[in-house]
Amino acid sequence: MEAGILSVPGGPGKRGHRVPFPAPHEARTMKLATLKDGSRDGQLAVVSRDLATVHLADGIAPTLQRALDDWAFIAPQLEDLYQTLNLGKARHAFPFEPGRCMAPLPRAFQWVDGSAYAHHFELLTRARGAEVPASYRREPTAYQGGSDDFLGGLDDAPFASEDWGIDFEAELAAVVDDVPMGAAPAACAGHVRLLMLVNDWSLRHLIPDELAKGFGFLQSKPATAFAPVAVTPDELGEAWREGRVHAPVLVHLNGRKVGDADAGAGTVFGFPELIAHVARTRNLRAGSILGLGTVSNDDTARGFSCIAEQRALETLADGQPSTPYLCFGDRVRIEVFDALGQSVFGAIDQAVVRTRP
Amino acid sequence: MEAGILSVPGGPGKRGHRVPFPAPHEARTMKLATLKDGSRDGQLAVVSRDLATVHLADGIAPTLQRALDDWAFIAPQLEDLYQTLNLGKARHAFPFEPGRCMAPLPRAFQWVDGSAYAHHFELLTRARGAEVPASYRREPTAYQGGSDDFLGGLDDAPFASEDWGIDFEAELAAVVDDVPMGAAPAACAGHVRLLMLVNDWSLRHLIPDELAKGFGFLQSKPATAFAPVAVTPDELGEAWREGRVHAPVLVHLNGRKVGDADAGAGTVFGFPELIAHVARTRNLRAGSILGLGTVSNDDTARGFSCIAEQRALETLADGQPSTPYLCFGDRVRIEVFDALGQSVFGAIDQAVVRTRP
Repeated sequence: MEAGILSVPGGPGKRGHRVPFPAPHEARTMKLATLKDGSRDGQLAVVSRDLATVHLADGIAPTLQRALDDWAFIAPQLEDLYQTLNLGKARHAFPFEPGRCMAPLPRAFQWVDGSAYAHHFELLTRARGAEVPASYRREPTAYQGGSDDFLGGLDDAPFASEDWGIDFEAELAAVVDDVPMGAAPAACAGHVRLLMLVNDWSLRHLIPDELAKGFGFLQSKPATAFAPVAVTPDELGEAWREGRVHAPVLVHLNGRKVGDADAGAGTVFGFPELIAHVARTRNLRAGSILGLGTVSNDDTARGFSCIAEQRALETLADGQPSTPYLCFGDRVRIEVFDALGQSVFGAIDQAVVRTRP
Repeated sequence: MEAGILSVPGGPGKRGHRVPFPAPHEARTMKLATLKDGSRDGQLAVVSRDLATVHLADGIAPTLQRALDDWAFIAPQLEDLYQTLNLGKARHAFPFEPGRCMAPLPRAFQWVDGSAYAHHFELLTRARGAEVPASYRREPTAYQGGSDDFLGGLDDAPFASEDWGIDFEAELAAVVDDVPMGAAPAACAGHVRLLMLVNDWSLRHLIPDELAKGFGFLQSKPATAFAPVAVTPDELGEAWREGRVHAPVLVHLNGRKVGDADAGAGTVFGFPELIAHVARTRNLRAGSILGLGTVSNDDTARGFSCIAEQRALETLADGQPSTPYLCFGDRVRIEVFDALGQSVFGAIDQAVVRTRP
């Protein structure tokens, strides 16, 4: 629909250079974001591969949820716009500002978060004096999270008290289209439509009492944050395989690099297995988000993707933790780069702030 | 907006009889439903108090979520239509067929289910050999449920296997508008915009393993069903007080009455306390649904609102349960009547069926 339009001065394409028609494979890739417009669901936009420019997609679908509701019909139109934008030929492109983004899905109908990284799960389970369930390596472990109020990647993260044990968790998540009840893992891989980067804020001091009840997390998992850009799996090229993202997740705490664990290593299940696990007894509807949990590798030289893990290691080594949980004013940055050094999802970069009364 | 229009032949109002202008109190009441129209969110409609007629509300708000998103602006318009409909003067009213209804919110951004009835919680916790947490009577116990795929009140409930221990749970739930983080219980009562009747389908044989993990319910809580009509709290008159619905919940199993427990008795918390509990560390956004859990009274003469409870009592008395869980073809009916004998929410009336492959 955007064919034949003029190139944009300052756009990212090679102006005056004839670009060959994209290969079929490339046509399945795209990057999407949701811009703040004062509404609850924001405005769907297509972002260029280099995250330099953006183009509203409101002529195609007003929101990302609406695009996911009718993906087979909507996605090709978004792809057309993405191709045009990457060529620098999109009519109304403008510079991409990540701070203008909400979470790609500012609210969602489902958010299920797994705990696929054995090193993280086993360390934290033991650190709170609990037993690793016998089922852990046999089937996915996951909880149902709140999905009514997500934070944008550059939004402040508000908390009422530093005494809650404020912690981040760097994760990857998948967005699916409709998954029918009983779908097998092999079929579930094809239902992954988008991937996202997550900061799953956690309140460590509230977790033990909640998990002791057996009913899962509630107060201990406040609003979750998502990087500005959601990408189709094919955007990751070879890094997307076996239902996992094979790439390091860079974590900076107050400007200091603290982790670069490989999201493709150390997992006991991938996205297809998690999706099939949740879909065993019910349908998953389009726009459901599923996460694999805090990225974590056995190799502790890769650092940490949440403070709790570091504290558990310190406790094992020294008898007590030395890394404090977060304080107001602290800043967490989480980012994934592709093989060419390009930021894939844009950065999560959040300040911890005190809630306004 | 519907003032001065003609009466409808066959409508429920007293034609030719001059009805006095509704009192201010009455003007805050209404009944809403969502009609199947092939879309994911259905079509918002206003239902007459006697559940005899219905009028599309699509000229006011296309969906119930949209109405909740902007409740202060939308609700008065829906109320006007409700008044007109009750007077038999709505222009395009037609007979209400509960079978045409989806859940009032066919999908929602949040579904948190509590366990407020001490008799139910303590009995079932002990029945699975677990300890009642010390916190149970001190603060609300609740879990985050799946909300992406709700069933309508007359929809079949599909399951792949009878071996899962198929059970119903009769419950009441509240729908809130935006609740700010940290809101006190007293303030939370005012955020209850609608009440609904729930069948929280549960797979008993999958619960022990899931709760042992501590991460809550996932496979053991398949799609939840809701009665056709959502009502404002004031529709219940004196039965809505202390943040609870004081009315019996009638349960029939295959045509036989098995329970009529009072939803206002035997609770350790009400809706305001549950809402405040969940909002302690995060905002709750409009359209969030919160349930008080399976209705249950200490007085066992009131019968049961889920089979698991009856089986636990049988086990205590006889050493083993005698009431089986549900089989394909079984039918569950759940309904609440007001003081005048009028069905408040319409009935939940569902058949247990085998999923089609």
